Amino acid sequence: MEVTRQNFKDSLCPIYSAIEEADFLAIDGEFSGISDGPSVSALTNGMDTPGERYVKLRKHSMDFLLFQFGLCTFRYDQSQSKYLMKAFNFYIFPKPFSRNSPDIKFICQSSSIDFLASQGFDFNKVFRSGIPYLNQEEESQLREQYEERRSQVNGAGTPSYISPNSCKGPVNVPDEHKDFIGRVVEKVDALLNSSEKSVELEPCSGFQRKLIYQTLNWKYPKGIHVETVETEKKERFIQISKVDEEERRRMEQQKYEREQEEMNDAVGFSRVIHAVSKSGKLVVGHNMLLDVMHTIHQFYCSLPEELDDFKEVTMCVFPRLLDTKLMASTQPFKELITNTSLAELEKQLKEKPFKAPRVECSEGFQSYDTASERLHEAGYDAYITGLCFISMANYLGSFLTPPRSHISARSKLLEPFYNKLFLMRVIDIPYLNISGPDLQPKRDHVLYVTFPKEWKTSDLYQLFSAFGNIQVSWLDDTSAFVSLSQLEQVQIAVNTSQYAESYRIQTYAEYLQAKQKNTNINRKWAEDGWADASYKSAGMTSTCSRAHNRSLTGKRSLSPTQEDQNSDFTGIADSNWSNYSNPETKKIKRDAGVSGGCAQTYADVLVSRTTDDWLRTLPVEGTPSTSPTEAEAESQEADTWPKTSANENKDPQATQTGLFDVPQVW
Amino acid sequence: MEVTRQNFKDSLCPIYSAIEEADFLAIDGEFSGISDGPSVSALTNGMDTPGERYVKLRKHSMDFLLFQFGLCTFRYDQSQSKYLMKAFNFYIFPKPFSRNSPDIKFICQSSSIDFLASQGFDFNKVFRSGIPYLNQEEESQLREQYEERRSQVNGAGTPSYISPNSCKGPVNVPDEHKDFIGRVVEKVDALLNSSEKSVELEPCSGFQRKLIYQTLNWKYPKGIHVETVETEKKERFIQISKVDEEERRRMEQQKYEREQEEMNDAVGFSRVIHAVSKSGKLVVGHNMLLDVMHTIHQFYCSLPEELDDFKEVTMCVFPRLLDTKLMASTQPFKELITNTSLAELEKQLKEKPFKAPRVECSEGFQSYDTASERLHEAGYDAYITGLCFISMANYLGSFLTPPRSHISARSKLLEPFYNKLFLMRVIDIPYLNISGPDLQPKRDHVLYVTFPKEWKTSDLYQLFSAFGNIQVSWLDDTSAFVSLSQLEQVQIAVNTSQYAESYRIQTYAEYLQAKQKNTNINRKWAEDGWADASYKSAGMTSTCSRAHNRSLTGKRSLSPTQEDQNSDFTGIADSNWSNYSNPETKKIKRDAGVSGGCAQTYADVLVSRTTDDWLRTLPVEGTPSTSPTEAEAESQEADTWPKTSANENKDPQATQTGLFDVPQVW
Repeated sequence: MEVTRQNFKDSLCPIYSAIEEADFLAIDGEFSGISDGPSVSALTNGMDTPGERYVKLRKHSMDFLLFQFGLCTFRYDQSQSKYLMKAFNFYIFPKPFSRNSPDIKFICQSSSIDFLASQGFDFNKVFRSGIPYLNQEEESQLREQYEERRSQVNGAGTPSYISPNSCKGPVNVPDEHKDFIGRVVEKVDALLNSSEKSVELEPCSGFQRKLIYQTLNWKYPKGIHVETVETEKKERFIQISKVDEEERRRMEQQKYEREQEEMNDAVGFSRVIHAVSKSGKLVVGHNMLLDVMHTIHQFYCSLPEELDDFKEVTMCVFPRLLDTKLMASTQPFKELITNTSLAELEKQLKEKPFKAPRVECSEGFQSYDTASERLHEAGYDAYITGLCFISMANYLGSFLTPPRSHISARSKLLEPFYNKLFLMRVIDIPYLNISGPDLQPKRDHVLYVTFPKEWKTSDLYQLFSAFGNIQVSWLDDTSAFVSLSQLEQVQIAVNTSQYAESYRIQTYAEYLQAKQKNTNINRKWAEDGWADASYKSAGMTSTCSRAHNRSLTGKRSLSPTQEDQNSDFTGIADSNWSNYSNPETKKIKRDAGVSGGCAQTYADVLVSRTTDDWLRTLPVEGTPSTSPTEAEAESQEADTWPKTSANENKDPQATQTGLFDVPQVW
Repeated sequence: MEVTRQNFKDSLCPIYSAIEEADFLAIDGEFSGISDGPSVSALTNGMDTPGERYVKLRKHSMDFLLFQFGLCTFRYDQSQSKYLMKAFNFYIFPKPFSRNSPDIKFICQSSSIDFLASQGFDFNKVFRSGIPYLNQEEESQLREQYEERRSQVNGAGTPSYISPNSCKGPVNVPDEHKDFIGRVVEKVDALLNSSEKSVELEPCSGFQRKLIYQTLNWKYPKGIHVETVETEKKERFIQISKVDEEERRRMEQQKYEREQEEMNDAVGFSRVIHAVSKSGKLVVGHNMLLDVMHTIHQFYCSLPEELDDFKEVTMCVFPRLLDTKLMASTQPFKELITNTSLAELEKQLKEKPFKAPRVECSEGFQSYDTASERLHEAGYDAYITGLCFISMANYLGSFLTPPRSHISARSKLLEPFYNKLFLMRVIDIPYLNISGPDLQPKRDHVLYVTFPKEWKTSDLYQLFSAFGNIQVSWLDDTSAFVSLSQLEQVQIAVNTSQYAESYRIQTYAEYLQAKQKNTNINRKWAEDGWADASYKSAGMTSTCSRAHNRSLTGKRSLSPTQEDQNSDFTGIADSNWSNYSNPETKKIKRDAGVSGGCAQTYADVLVSRTTDDWLRTLPVEGTPSTSPTEAEAESQEADTWPKTSANENKDPQATQTGLFDVPQVW
């Protein structure tokens, strides 16, 4: 269903009930650009920490406009064993709703616009019929404006709508307006003494109208109704009507309702996001970090500077997220899926060992045909993201005893994938963990190299030719990270550079230290997130080490009942994590910066999740001597990390029987 | 005629010949926004100097995209006594033409986009079919890239296309690629010894392709042709063909021509602007400062920081400009025209004392009907701008003896209006003078006031209530210019503020001094143009004072012959300029920063114009005791300056007979 400014109001009820009845929601956004930085490689260094990446995306991507939003709701019909879906494709545009409203500026990136144009994207629909929106701050400002205006109207509405700032005494009229106001008062007196019902004043300035409101409010607390009317030519004048008290109240009430309606219109599309948020339902997206960032930025609040604060806000707005790209890149899927791009993923998940899910379009809703692709239309992308999620979720059911062909969106089997958003092109950190601390891979084999700006990748290869295979991650013109394959070469490489003049080699630890030092000296550095990489919260047990202490052997059989009740059978094969230090969980603050109401609603959810949901997984049967994670670390190439799993799948038989019978995150 | 990416190449010839045959050209641009500053009032202070205004527009307006360009050419057909016009409406979009080409980011302003959308603007046509373009720097970079690539090809073309950087010795192949390159060489050897005609290599990286080119270029200077081919999946591989010398040359030539074509396609719409520039024809626009700035910025070069440099570049690109809004706001038109907005102006210029011009659409071209307005389509706006220009030019003919109903676009009568671009919302400087120094009004009656940020306009009115009428021009939250109507009050106002604590009053001269001081201390201030306000060039006589020395009385009769021959009958009623200091002209440097060719072509034009064209006007018959300029200065309101002339026209009879029988700039 296409939703524009024209049919938005009529669509709201169906949208609300679709969200209400859904088992889960899938979303997707289309933007006017991706990165306004100098280059993608500068934006996405393979050694970025999650904090660094967040800061870069916030700085270089948030000035683009999210101008199409896809929402697809999925409800499981138990009786027919199939999903019923409703797809909404919203066009979004910050049309200024009045002369005083914010005049949003946004950036367009030619390559992104050209790409969307080649996909038949309808820009006219965005700019001519896009639904407006306000973030929460703009919404409160607007409400204050309305209240202030009400307080200037004489005898204004109920006390709760009078702003405390409103002037209640005699009005201070500047000299040059005294004559003008005097004449207005004379006209009102004449009106009250005549048989006329109302009088219209000449058009005048906003300042003069304010003076008129204040003066009449004070001089005539009863008996008249004052209202600003706009002519066709957009000139504004004041109309004064004689009214009895009852009529006045009725007119005030009408006006109040009209204003509420105007305000709701201005809040516009944000109401849909508020409904999604309030539902607390699982929200699924594909490679969804930017979608989540844009959605919060545009419809809730400017993104916080620090990653930790972003995590808090995100958990408040979207308490349960699931990224299908991360899921597909994780055990047990990563061995089976060669290409995690959305279109390819959707195709592969129709083939064995997966099954195309049974999904039908709800009555009265537009159905999408996956054969005639409408890729990069947000509604369609949300739809096939939902299909991918269902296929993968159901596949997890095959590991249960007895195997189940349908797995609920609320199943515990899915919890290991919650709130982990895929990180593009980071070599050793697969995801951003929204509901806990991020992975901190040891980077003992990584060197930080600085050199003259004439150097190219080939110069680095030459410099390190004695040290075996290397991986280069450029930072800027004069620096790069170089990962060595053999740890014991690291110190040798550093030592050999001691007398070099044109270049310099430091260990990653030294690099971090220098950076931290800079952070302390120069507060600007705090922006890059490193200063907070070691955040800890006393008194919280490390989920990772707790899991390690549990002795878990043998395959656990799960009945459906167990699946829904047992919330404490988590465990993790610690050897898979040997390359990571054990970060400690941090309890997410409850007073998140969004609305108080929202924070309260989700506080319980937040707490229960953050304490032990992080990295929860099912018990594994034995641990292979070489874990897949380690195997990967050796064969991966920078920038191609998510796509290489196919070649590494050396023993597919083992994959399906012994190794990967349970989901296991990395 | 609508011109898009699809029909651009076929349209170029008709466009070139339309420009070639034209008597004058009219242009108009549509942009994705106007100002990304905090507010329009911050962008356009009523007391801006031309330098300040330029700096603000450059900073806050150039990141928008000029995405529709209207060009309308007008040719006078003597035999039929009518104009023949050809209108072109170009859609412009910086579609990246290759993976290495610039990926332009541009800002959209919601209010502007919304306004254009309401006018039926076709954004899809812009983004799907817009013609690409390059500025001169991008064009040279691209040419260099092509040349460098050619130089890597073995035995590349003619020597003039070999870049001096190309490697001619043995190639330095990094160790890890030595095997790979060795295998390529083996394959080529095998090819040369076989009966096969060509061999295709495996897809490989760009770096590897470069090594292959260099190696084969060195090892096999003759006998093979190496070319990169792209598969449908955008994978690139190298194809090596055995060729004799003649065939090789032919293939090289074909490739060279293909590349030239590609390059021309990339330069795209800029070629039209180059043609306009090269023609040296009069270019007419309405309120055209932003059009000129955007056109130069987008199709020539990034705008220079300083106004003076901008003037130089502009004179080089557009040697003759005429702004119909400035013309309509100037004698003898300002007394007759109540509204200088384009649509209103066009209407008024059909009525007496003006005449609708005889203009017909050239055969095969789309005609515009002014009755069914298509305002804000650039082609249409350019068209009616041309109509306005013709009407006003012809009206000037009525002052000749005998009166003439047609005035050529090259007539001397028009010279007073050349190269003066309308300045929006500046109280006392009507235009930016592109081909000379700007007016420097005395601002003795202006005060610079600083105050707490809570203050509003009414507080300023109250503060100055003892000093008669005032005019307020806000600078920011805590400062404004206040113009007093009575000069003798200035010192009193300053004195009264000496012991004030919350606010401070300075004269304009003191304000300037403080600013200049800051300029010297902090180089950043130089950006605002004030530092250069007093630029002078020794040895040049002031046109203004020269004109003053001439005694000009009595009405001069002009025969057509005189009109076209006499280039030295200029003069000016000095009393009209009593409020301005006499700036001296500055000879515009000949080595302007655009292309050498361009600078040469227009050098003569520039020199002859800048020495004495500035403020040239026809002789006036007597000088009224109160000049219109002075009369205005008293009754004008800030921000409404161009629109108030109607009310001031107290004696229309005098206007048409005595006072304004000759054009007179301000």
